[in-house]
Amino acid sequence: MTQETNQSIDDALNRHARRMMQPVNHLRHLVNQPDRISRFMLKKAGMRFDFTRHRIDTQILSLLHRCAEVKAVPSRFREMMSGNMANPTENRAALHTATRSFSHQPVHVNGTDVMPDLERERKRIRSFSEAIRNGKILGTTGKPLNTIVLIGIGGSYLGTEFVYQALQAYGKSDIPIHFLSNVDIHQFADITRRVDIETTLWIVISKSYTTPETLANEMQATALITESGLNPEQHIITVTGRNSPGDHPKDGIMETFHMYDYIGGRYSVSSAVGGVPLSIAYGYDIFERFLKGAEEMDRHACDAPGEENLPLTAALVSYWNYQFLGYRTQAIVPYAFPLRKLTAHIQQLHMESNGKSVTTEGRELPLPAGYIVFGEPGTNAQHSFFQLAHQGQPFPIDFIGVLHHRYKGAMSCSQGINNHQELWANLLSQATALAVGRQSNDAARCFPGNRPSSLLLIDEITPENIGRLLSFYEAKTVLEGFLWGTNPFDQFGVELGKVNADRVRRAIARKNSGEDDPFTTLDPMTAFYMHLLSEERP
Amino acid sequence: MTQETNQSIDDALNRHARRMMQPVNHLRHLVNQPDRISRFMLKKAGMRFDFTRHRIDTQILSLLHRCAEVKAVPSRFREMMSGNMANPTENRAALHTATRSFSHQPVHVNGTDVMPDLERERKRIRSFSEAIRNGKILGTTGKPLNTIVLIGIGGSYLGTEFVYQALQAYGKSDIPIHFLSNVDIHQFADITRRVDIETTLWIVISKSYTTPETLANEMQATALITESGLNPEQHIITVTGRNSPGDHPKDGIMETFHMYDYIGGRYSVSSAVGGVPLSIAYGYDIFERFLKGAEEMDRHACDAPGEENLPLTAALVSYWNYQFLGYRTQAIVPYAFPLRKLTAHIQQLHMESNGKSVTTEGRELPLPAGYIVFGEPGTNAQHSFFQLAHQGQPFPIDFIGVLHHRYKGAMSCSQGINNHQELWANLLSQATALAVGRQSNDAARCFPGNRPSSLLLIDEITPENIGRLLSFYEAKTVLEGFLWGTNPFDQFGVELGKVNADRVRRAIARKNSGEDDPFTTLDPMTAFYMHLLSEERP
Repeated sequence: MTQETNQSIDDALNRHARRMMQPVNHLRHLVNQPDRISRFMLKKAGMRFDFTRHRIDTQILSLLHRCAEVKAVPSRFREMMSGNMANPTENRAALHTATRSFSHQPVHVNGTDVMPDLERERKRIRSFSEAIRNGKILGTTGKPLNTIVLIGIGGSYLGTEFVYQALQAYGKSDIPIHFLSNVDIHQFADITRRVDIETTLWIVISKSYTTPETLANEMQATALITESGLNPEQHIITVTGRNSPGDHPKDGIMETFHMYDYIGGRYSVSSAVGGVPLSIAYGYDIFERFLKGAEEMDRHACDAPGEENLPLTAALVSYWNYQFLGYRTQAIVPYAFPLRKLTAHIQQLHMESNGKSVTTEGRELPLPAGYIVFGEPGTNAQHSFFQLAHQGQPFPIDFIGVLHHRYKGAMSCSQGINNHQELWANLLSQATALAVGRQSNDAARCFPGNRPSSLLLIDEITPENIGRLLSFYEAKTVLEGFLWGTNPFDQFGVELGKVNADRVRRAIARKNSGEDDPFTTLDPMTAFYMHLLSEERP
Repeated sequence: MTQETNQSIDDALNRHARRMMQPVNHLRHLVNQPDRISRFMLKKAGMRFDFTRHRIDTQILSLLHRCAEVKAVPSRFREMMSGNMANPTENRAALHTATRSFSHQPVHVNGTDVMPDLERERKRIRSFSEAIRNGKILGTTGKPLNTIVLIGIGGSYLGTEFVYQALQAYGKSDIPIHFLSNVDIHQFADITRRVDIETTLWIVISKSYTTPETLANEMQATALITESGLNPEQHIITVTGRNSPGDHPKDGIMETFHMYDYIGGRYSVSSAVGGVPLSIAYGYDIFERFLKGAEEMDRHACDAPGEENLPLTAALVSYWNYQFLGYRTQAIVPYAFPLRKLTAHIQQLHMESNGKSVTTEGRELPLPAGYIVFGEPGTNAQHSFFQLAHQGQPFPIDFIGVLHHRYKGAMSCSQGINNHQELWANLLSQATALAVGRQSNDAARCFPGNRPSSLLLIDEITPENIGRLLSFYEAKTVLEGFLWGTNPFDQFGVELGKVNADRVRRAIARKNSGEDDPFTTLDPMTAFYMHLLSEERP
């Protein structure tokens, strides 16, 4: 019965998609509908989501919301937040939302309330970060630790880097963070020549503590600390799963903070993964304000009726664009320098969560789920890839705007407007140009228009708003996964590369230990490069 | 006749594309062909291009090269380099290659040799950069200028930033460069709190010197310099077109260097646009070595026979992937931290050059040209978007490898291999996993494989190799444009946004000057936001 209803809604949406191809439904007409703003703009939970410039109308929107209902998307989201097993392929809950719950309501996983663990970690983060910031904890030579090097890759740093950079516009961090993610030794060199080892705190982040890149960098860091005559136990802390190989305070490590198996790496910014570095950099209170903004958006995503629900509506619009209108790529373009790392984070969040071809039940999808996410801040993007956006293959864009800036100094006026107004003049002009286009007798100067975009608005860069924005995209990502019927919390697609890498790594290790002919186990192409790498440098 | 031949080659390629869809032509079989490496790997001009893992065979390759011949692609490239009008819609030559010509051969544009201008600018760059580096030119207070802030957007900085960051691994710059591209005042604040205004040299780069973002930042900088009691004439230089509004040495500007209308912004790294900042940062000799590497690849691209020609073969492989196999996106993933800004530069280079729907003759293409370029460095990308690459919609990847690192310190071994070897183990394992895939009874652990990739190899990070890599991608981009029949040197697609922005800017200026009802000329959606922005801040 549900299956049938799914199908009938899909069929109806496909008919509407064909209807939207008609010239009369070009965006240049849609945006002029008098009720466009009132019907296709939502303002809730401290954010605005404007989808007036999507190729959508009230019939389609209402069908999409029915589609979500039939697929039980809102109830699956509520179940996720309440601790039910949302990640069945790994037999785990998915409780990133619990990391920012201040409601004192229990959240049970297999009968055990997880909140005491999470609340204890928050308290430990508060007191540890204060001790570093107040100079109660010092480095080996008795100097304050005034610089962080964060060792972590993927979900262990991308979200934290986004929040860290965003909050620089709110209040400069007291203790700067350098992100050491790449295993390329040149990044290690680049960072270590810019920091003073004597006053550096290293935060090593890996849930399993088996990530090869992170372990290689940790080993390199430990060697450097030791060579510098310092004690790693006064300079290294870890954030990791309980009982992982990195869960060893007092064994080469000053302190360990825990993350839990019900928090995936790409959803972990609001756990100790982001909490430890951000609290040291900005103070725990700022981190807690960030959490409370995220909590507000979580509650909204969970409780708001479908048609008022920002993340759900945004998920449906993206689903419509991908599944029915055929857009395979999505750009995210924040017109805000502080949000410059948002796109890289959402790229991971979406592509790792939703880049799947199989439903939770193991059924292969006719069309793989997940779109490619890319982008650069505006107006920079206008000067790099927007030529293609206007006149090449079309793709939807999330424009992100910040209403008020936080700059305290004087601002000059160029052409009668200031820098912040210049940003806005461009954002709005691009969205209009993409939607409306322009006819011309000169084919090279013709703009077909009909290119959809959203405008996502926050009032100002504050910890709360950054939390809301993060939670908005997390919820949207999960809801999209539920729409596709895939599991947004596993990532089996990265396994094969790891298995292959193990084989190559062992071959190189045999070479390093002087073994003859160590590459015979490898495929010819890999062996070819292994020989090249082993040749004497000219 | 040519038209007919084009069509017959296209038909044949379409037949081959259907053939490549057959399971027998899955990449897992192709990569095992014994002659794969000898036939599908080129080593020329100091670089290696390995296209063994593309869905291609000798018949297809030979047809693609015939396609290039029939379209006169190699001869159009030679004509471009010799100064013929390669940019007909703007009635200009396209002579970025001349900026790195050391052959002392004249290059005529409309009967005038351009080389004396270019050689004079190179000499001026040498002597000016030496004067800054030697402390012969000092700031207002008599201190050496030891920091650069480069104001420029798009082509005025992306390529320079790529080269600047890459060369940090070769030899740390003596005079660091901060790139101020975004008009968002928060970037201005971010940079200015990290530099000492007294010892900062500002380089303002804009060919037209009318770019609003650049002018807004220049005005802000001039105000800051003046407020700090310093003389802008001792702290600002410009790189711009002759007779532009910024071509005014001694009128608020210390010195001006010229770029020319036959050099497009995105192709301008090897002109004064890159030459001035890079020569000050690293010394002119390093910049000249970079130019000579680029020159070597230019000569190769111009002179080498088709089947030995790296950029031409790479362009044909990309054209095949887009036009016949239907891939709409291309990732660029350098397994090298120093090359981390390469992708952003190539994203602009390709998408602005080739994101077009109209041929040079004004004929509309059945399918818009140009693909979406995105990427992050490896192995980071494995931990962000590679899940989708393995199990979602497929897209081709350019892997970029660097054979030898330049790190001088000791390297630890984790799991028996060092950091540099870890990078390589991953690069090769990913390329293999994507191509070969893996069957599994568990659908969630099934890897379809058949995902194409290239491996582009340089020996080491040196100025010459960075020049080769840059020229390789520039030539590939231009050759792709010639294959599509589009003009890779214009960018009319960015015009409409500019026209709209002018209208909005004027409305804001009216508002700023206190006019009542300044937004009536705007469309309702834009006016809505203008009112929001004008509201009193709560």
